[in-house]
Amino acid sequence: MAQAYFRQRMFTPATFSLFVRSYPPNRGYFVAAGLEDVLDYLTSLSFGDRAVEYLRSTGIFGDDFLEYLRGVSFTGSVRAFPEGGLFFADEPVVEVTAPIIEAQLVETYIINQVNLQSMLATKAARCGWAAQGRGIADFASRRTQGTDAAVKMARASYIAGFQSTSNVLAASEYGIPPAGTMAHSFISSFPSEIEAFRAYAEAFPSRTVLLLDTYDTVAGAWNAVKIAKEMEARGDRMVGVRLDSGDFDQLSRQVRVVLDSAGLRYVNILASGGLDEYELDSLVQAGAPIDQFGVGTKAGVSADAPWSDMAYKLVCFDQRPVMKLSTGKVSLPGAKQVFRIRGDDGRFAEDVIALQDEMHACGEPMMQQVMSGGVPTGLSPSLEEVRQRFGNHFQALDPRFKILHRPARFPVSVSPRLKRLAAEVKKEAIAANVSAAC
Amino acid sequence: MAQAYFRQRMFTPATFSLFVRSYPPNRGYFVAAGLEDVLDYLTSLSFGDRAVEYLRSTGIFGDDFLEYLRGVSFTGSVRAFPEGGLFFADEPVVEVTAPIIEAQLVETYIINQVNLQSMLATKAARCGWAAQGRGIADFASRRTQGTDAAVKMARASYIAGFQSTSNVLAASEYGIPPAGTMAHSFISSFPSEIEAFRAYAEAFPSRTVLLLDTYDTVAGAWNAVKIAKEMEARGDRMVGVRLDSGDFDQLSRQVRVVLDSAGLRYVNILASGGLDEYELDSLVQAGAPIDQFGVGTKAGVSADAPWSDMAYKLVCFDQRPVMKLSTGKVSLPGAKQVFRIRGDDGRFAEDVIALQDEMHACGEPMMQQVMSGGVPTGLSPSLEEVRQRFGNHFQALDPRFKILHRPARFPVSVSPRLKRLAAEVKKEAIAANVSAAC
Repeated sequence: MAQAYFRQRMFTPATFSLFVRSYPPNRGYFVAAGLEDVLDYLTSLSFGDRAVEYLRSTGIFGDDFLEYLRGVSFTGSVRAFPEGGLFFADEPVVEVTAPIIEAQLVETYIINQVNLQSMLATKAARCGWAAQGRGIADFASRRTQGTDAAVKMARASYIAGFQSTSNVLAASEYGIPPAGTMAHSFISSFPSEIEAFRAYAEAFPSRTVLLLDTYDTVAGAWNAVKIAKEMEARGDRMVGVRLDSGDFDQLSRQVRVVLDSAGLRYVNILASGGLDEYELDSLVQAGAPIDQFGVGTKAGVSADAPWSDMAYKLVCFDQRPVMKLSTGKVSLPGAKQVFRIRGDDGRFAEDVIALQDEMHACGEPMMQQVMSGGVPTGLSPSLEEVRQRFGNHFQALDPRFKILHRPARFPVSVSPRLKRLAAEVKKEAIAANVSAAC
Repeated sequence: MAQAYFRQRMFTPATFSLFVRSYPPNRGYFVAAGLEDVLDYLTSLSFGDRAVEYLRSTGIFGDDFLEYLRGVSFTGSVRAFPEGGLFFADEPVVEVTAPIIEAQLVETYIINQVNLQSMLATKAARCGWAAQGRGIADFASRRTQGTDAAVKMARASYIAGFQSTSNVLAASEYGIPPAGTMAHSFISSFPSEIEAFRAYAEAFPSRTVLLLDTYDTVAGAWNAVKIAKEMEARGDRMVGVRLDSGDFDQLSRQVRVVLDSAGLRYVNILASGGLDEYELDSLVQAGAPIDQFGVGTKAGVSADAPWSDMAYKLVCFDQRPVMKLSTGKVSLPGAKQVFRIRGDDGRFAEDVIALQDEMHACGEPMMQQVMSGGVPTGLSPSLEEVRQRFGNHFQALDPRFKILHRPARFPVSVSPRLKRLAAEVKKEAIAANVSAAC
């Protein structure tokens, strides 16, 4: 496509909208994430010698086009929802305006990253909602779909309120608190469970969390009591015990009784293994005495909704608004703005999707200019600021849009001007293409 | 954990088994993939200054342990199913034997990669089975879960029989044929569809595939006919047209009629958009005249089974076979071998999971030594050889294990010696841990 544009000398600016067409099952909002990686990518876009030589070796591309690629960089502008903000179906979360070849070359990466990170942040937000204030640690790295997803899961889930991650690389890169864990293999490598517990308590006197279920969870709790008493004798305090299999509701109650009967009320109970927002909700509703959760695979692959219908569509070319009419995939024409209106209670009441140059008396414009002429317009917010923004937005969203099953649809309307434009562009497109061809 | 092992001077060798505990929905086999990345990772394992300094900054680790990490490399051995081979639930697809700290440090990466790549190769094999000989191109990069998954999807799906990928990086790295496509934005950027078609046909006279559904698929087919005739006048031939939305069965028949009525029998019909093995099966069974498929999102995230219960478990430590007893997560002790027995027809009849030092008169040992003393024992097979192995294995598997819905369970048994060992180890573990604690 880029070569065809090049041959036609099509270097005029185009605008592309990135948006989600419809909600995946049980979703009522999306958490914007991935913008920082998009800006980094755009800033560093280039074709090196190796890339150009590979493309030449395919025999598909002409020398003139390959020379053009060798000099290409991203020179366009980007407007976007800030990371951590909430957005809804049909709303452009990112809009890119650039010479069409540039805007098209970056399509795959932009969709890939904003789709992944927003999906994972949304999943994590759902887990946080279900946990009702209990802390959550990201334990997903082992089974995310690849290493990129592992690192992005740590970041996205921290944005959406998780407290820590077991991914040490992500902890180091992003400044997220690292969470260490003990595996069953640690227990099995010692002649007996209690010897393993003792070795761990000696290595980490201030961070001891013991895994109880290698052989039998309640028997493990009694071993943990012995170790906690040994620690007390040394002036240390055990942080917690962890359940990793079985019926968490029942086991957490049994373990709580064992700990309390030994005067160990201060020892927390953690649970991990197969948890997602639905399971967290059940446990919290049942009143299981679990103080903290470790959430892994099902959150890290967004198991109940592992993809979303996120698309990057041309909406304006050379000042001309355009749209596609494909069955089930109609897009809205023109560069846009999203205005968010709050109710008297300060909560989000309604969004209006409008054309970029429209004004709205009482709505706050959600899309901000983040890149101009290929250069970021300001410093990126810190991860803590992004996390804070998520917290503010999430608090402003009524619970009926946050419930885990079949949430209500947040009201999003299209401005009268955009509606009229869409109708006109559709009519012209049919006249020029459908009627003419048949 | 590593620090606790270090403090206890536990440097004796441990063996870990990587296996899948149970089949995800509708799965009856797994395609082994990811071993090459595991061997690359093990060969290059090291802790640089930046990593060590980050770990030091957490305040969790002692100087003695950090100095140990600075000198660590992987010195162990690996036995594994060859890439492209089929394996079944409970069978160790990889076994790692190394000093326990080393074996444990590499756990996350090994699970992550073998799980991802085997899952994607398995999904692709199911698509190939459904397509019954029609070619498939990988179009998944836009919505895989991250960039690592995009590149690994291209490789895994090529192993399992796909013909090409739209991921140019993967095409370049692995030598997979690249597949280019035209997007709707290309069409919309021109004043009319037919002008877009004409520009593309001029840019790629020998690779023209036109996307028909931007405005109306059948009207698009008539525009394609005009362009095909212009190409014929120049001595060129259009390769194909592509459907990307709507009812593919109905539209492909209508488009075939349009093309054939214009004497364009040689123009192929491609379909893409929302396809997976279930959709391919419906279209093929219905006899839809589609010559080639582009498969994207649903295959690239293994949408109906986005994770598998793959685990990496300690099975032997310091010559002592071990196992965990956690509810629903019991593992088999000891280093193992898998023997595959063929029937008189040459097809796979049964597998036996045995201890590593067992012999089997008529079974072929599936696990091979691929690394010894931290060094690969031979050259990696080429991707074409791996693809060929998949083809041979897949042909040797009876169709009843390959059907898309509720396939039969391939017979896998445990050798009498391994069974006896498991019973003994379980008894000892209960005596040492459960009975003693209560």
